[in-house]
Amino acid sequence: MSKENIFQEKTLSSTNIYRGKVINVCQYKVKLPDGRKTIREIVEHPGAVVILALTDDKKIVMIKQFRKPAEEVLWELPAGTIEPGEDLETCARRELEEETGYYPRKIKKIITFFSSPGFCNEKLTLFLAKDLEKRIKNEDADEFIKVQLITPDETLDMVKNNIIKDAKTIIGILYLVSCI
Amino acid sequence: MSKENIFQEKTLSSTNIYRGKVINVCQYKVKLPDGRKTIREIVEHPGAVVILALTDDKKIVMIKQFRKPAEEVLWELPAGTIEPGEDLETCARRELEEETGYYPRKIKKIITFFSSPGFCNEKLTLFLAKDLEKRIKNEDADEFIKVQLITPDETLDMVKNNIIKDAKTIIGILYLVSCI
Repeated sequence: MSKENIFQEKTLSSTNIYRGKVINVCQYKVKLPDGRKTIREIVEHPGAVVILALTDDKKIVMIKQFRKPAEEVLWELPAGTIEPGEDLETCARRELEEETGYYPRKIKKIITFFSSPGFCNEKLTLFLAKDLEKRIKNEDADEFIKVQLITPDETLDMVKNNIIKDAKTIIGILYLVSCI
Repeated sequence: MSKENIFQEKTLSSTNIYRGKVINVCQYKVKLPDGRKTIREIVEHPGAVVILALTDDKKIVMIKQFRKPAEEVLWELPAGTIEPGEDLETCARRELEEETGYYPRKIKKIITFFSSPGFCNEKLTLFLAKDLEKRIKNEDADEFIKVQLITPDETLDMVKNNIIKDAKTIIGILYLVSCI
């Protein structure tokens, strides 16, 4: 048994509680490392991509949209949920074009992360997109999105002043500023 | 009507689908800005805190724990869910002490963010904690946590190499490196 495995929680049984459009909720009965049993409630999500897209003059393609769970308009990087059978890169190109009208000729994977691993399995993959081709914006049926190009310095100020309040967007911007 | 309000989605009705230990799931029937109607499924969460705790010799208090939704052991900053009626700062001090044994004599709020605002209302508040007092670690009933002190440079490498895969932890580390 590896050192890591001493933490592991073995699934004893699972029950589906809710099947929704995007998410499912399951209850897992698990055995803890010390043998005791407990219930974990888990929100299951197909996974998503987030795209840090840079224009030729080094601006970040940002969007603004109303988010019902937050009950406010949020500044975000373009992002979207993976469709069944879709690979991550195809999803990233599709979502960027659908939400902003920019199609990336160059795209590469940066990092993956869990949005909220205490109760949800949503995994996000951050892409860096460059060499953008402006196409006609093709809006999703129920999305109302405003696109804006902003310099990295300005977005960094927006993070510091907490004007940007979306986790994946904060990660994309801070990663660009400190790691790329 | 302000410019922001043109995006807003008015709630027409809501139905509770699931009431769990930590989360609830609700379906909201909403009216879109163009008058059409749609359903939003929302995971409701009480909110949480995350603590970037620095020792006197400038190391970050990190934890490792198995996360059932991720099905792996994750490196994280100490964090936890707000209890009913608890204020954010009290919650941050309590969670840091419970998970790591360090009690922060100094603590301040940095930023707040939504973990996954497309389908979940979980709001996290990031705190910076200093002047730590080592107390006896008081483990939660079903948490198996390993504490480790790591330098900011090392954690930054762990973000770049994607060894750290937890969103709130990536935010805390990159914020420290680029904004503090």
